[in-house]
Amino acid sequence: MMIDWPLLAVFLVTAFAAGSTGAFFSPGSWYAKLSKPSWTPPNWLFPLAWFVLYISMAFAAMRVAVSGHPEMAIALAIWGLQIVFNTLWSPIFFGLHRLFPALIVLFGMWASVLAMVVAFWRVDLFAGLLVAPYLVWTSVAFALNFSIWRRNPDAAQLAGS
Amino acid sequence: MMIDWPLLAVFLVTAFAAGSTGAFFSPGSWYAKLSKPSWTPPNWLFPLAWFVLYISMAFAAMRVAVSGHPEMAIALAIWGLQIVFNTLWSPIFFGLHRLFPALIVLFGMWASVLAMVVAFWRVDLFAGLLVAPYLVWTSVAFALNFSIWRRNPDAAQLAGS
Repeated sequence: MMIDWPLLAVFLVTAFAAGSTGAFFSPGSWYAKLSKPSWTPPNWLFPLAWFVLYISMAFAAMRVAVSGHPEMAIALAIWGLQIVFNTLWSPIFFGLHRLFPALIVLFGMWASVLAMVVAFWRVDLFAGLLVAPYLVWTSVAFALNFSIWRRNPDAAQLAGS
Repeated sequence: MMIDWPLLAVFLVTAFAAGSTGAFFSPGSWYAKLSKPSWTPPNWLFPLAWFVLYISMAFAAMRVAVSGHPEMAIALAIWGLQIVFNTLWSPIFFGLHRLFPALIVLFGMWASVLAMVVAFWRVDLFAGLLVAPYLVWTSVAFALNFSIWRRNPDAAQLAGS
């Protein structure tokens, strides 16, 4: 399989720059105090899942970028949109403790990831498959954010960071 | 001039989603207390400048995306990189009050904007011209972040939000 290293490098740096918000704004004492549903994934799973997803989405974007397909431009534009929503979420949820604005951002992220899966799939079947787990994970994250928002009307007043 | 509305819409939403960090994490009492150089632009200029720059960069990206140029993919990849750094900066500077990590992010942003200006220019002269002011503004922002970092060794301890 052909790998375009400069393109892959740019997409990887982009994905992990987005992921750095998870290190800057990470679950601390505030998140520990929130009421969460029984199916909340354990804390250790999040960085592991994101590590795999960031590599997959960067690799998929590279596949699309070398395709020369007529729908390549819109597919790459949607890649840019979803990665901005991805970057936004952690600062708003973990930084500001604002659960409802975070839910809105996550809805935008979910919709743009869905659009990306469809656009990537149309350009390159393998690229579409590579980003499909990202859509599943974003759906879980949306359900979790929604549940936490409903369970914690006092979230902004909870102490902790 | 041909306008591809779906592409322009995606790029505009991306740019203004990035810009929403400026509303979520805005200059407050903490920023007002910082020691700043005499050439610091007035607060009102920032949202105005960003408004113009976000529209310009979205329009330039659309020009590149419709070009069919062989270097279009790398140019759009770099667009994605710079807009992630753009999204990251405000939460780290205004949210965490961490001046040095913000400076590192701004360096990454400056370098990726420089690369974007060159890449856009090679694909489409007008697109390159459209993003040139963004490079100037990012240079000013970098100099300002650097100066504020040097002048305020105690920034993280300053009260305010």
